[in-house]
Amino acid sequence: EAMDPDSVSKAFVQHYYQTFDSNRAALVGLYQDGSMLTFEGEKFGGPAAIAGKLGSLPFQQCQHKIDTVDCQPSGPQGGVLVFVSGTITTGPGEHPLKFSQMFHLLPAGGSFYVQNDMFRLNYG
Amino acid sequence: EAMDPDSVSKAFVQHYYQTFDSNRAALVGLYQDGSMLTFEGEKFGGPAAIAGKLGSLPFQQCQHKIDTVDCQPSGPQGGVLVFVSGTITTGPGEHPLKFSQMFHLLPAGGSFYVQNDMFRLNYG
Repeated sequence: EAMDPDSVSKAFVQHYYQTFDSNRAALVGLYQDGSMLTFEGEKFGGPAAIAGKLGSLPFQQCQHKIDTVDCQPSGPQGGVLVFVSGTITTGPGEHPLKFSQMFHLLPAGGSFYVQNDMFRLNYG
Repeated sequence: EAMDPDSVSKAFVQHYYQTFDSNRAALVGLYQDGSMLTFEGEKFGGPAAIAGKLGSLPFQQCQHKIDTVDCQPSGPQGGVLVFVSGTITTGPGEHPLKFSQMFHLLPAGGSFYVQNDMFRLNYG
């Protein structure tokens, strides 16, 4: 039975950013071979390259704070599009950086994985 | 023959914002019956409701300036995901407002239409 997009989106956002902030290496499990990440305009394909990029970001710790989440079903495949805005703080004393991110989630094996992921900082 | 996502995205972004800024009512032709718009968290479905929302925005004239465009193919249907950031100015003397927007384009009849559209202002 299909979960509604709002529930999928809410659960995914909570899980994704909590994992990013507490156990960044575990994000690798959210991507499959055909997955794509565009991070500040740079493109990465597949779980290893994507996790490699996220693991190599120039900060040890970080905290995401989510301001808005919008979602819509993406089509007959049962996919969900998720559009997020928020801030990321990369250490004590650092200023929060504003960002926007979009995900395209596709169903597989009773769960969802990230097929498409695009991230941009929103500069003041 | 399929156009590559970068070409589709570039052509779409140019066309969409130019139409928005010069002939807003004509945007109706970019959507089909199953299309969805989420505008600042409000949901609209189908070309009439979507064009109605865009036409009812509280300004007569506007100018979009695009800062970043990222795109990826969305899956086996030949769809394209487009992730845009930029500013919109809604009249002489008005301050530019920062926004992010994502589109999911699907092919139909040799062209592409907007299946999914989500817009958010990025407040300072």
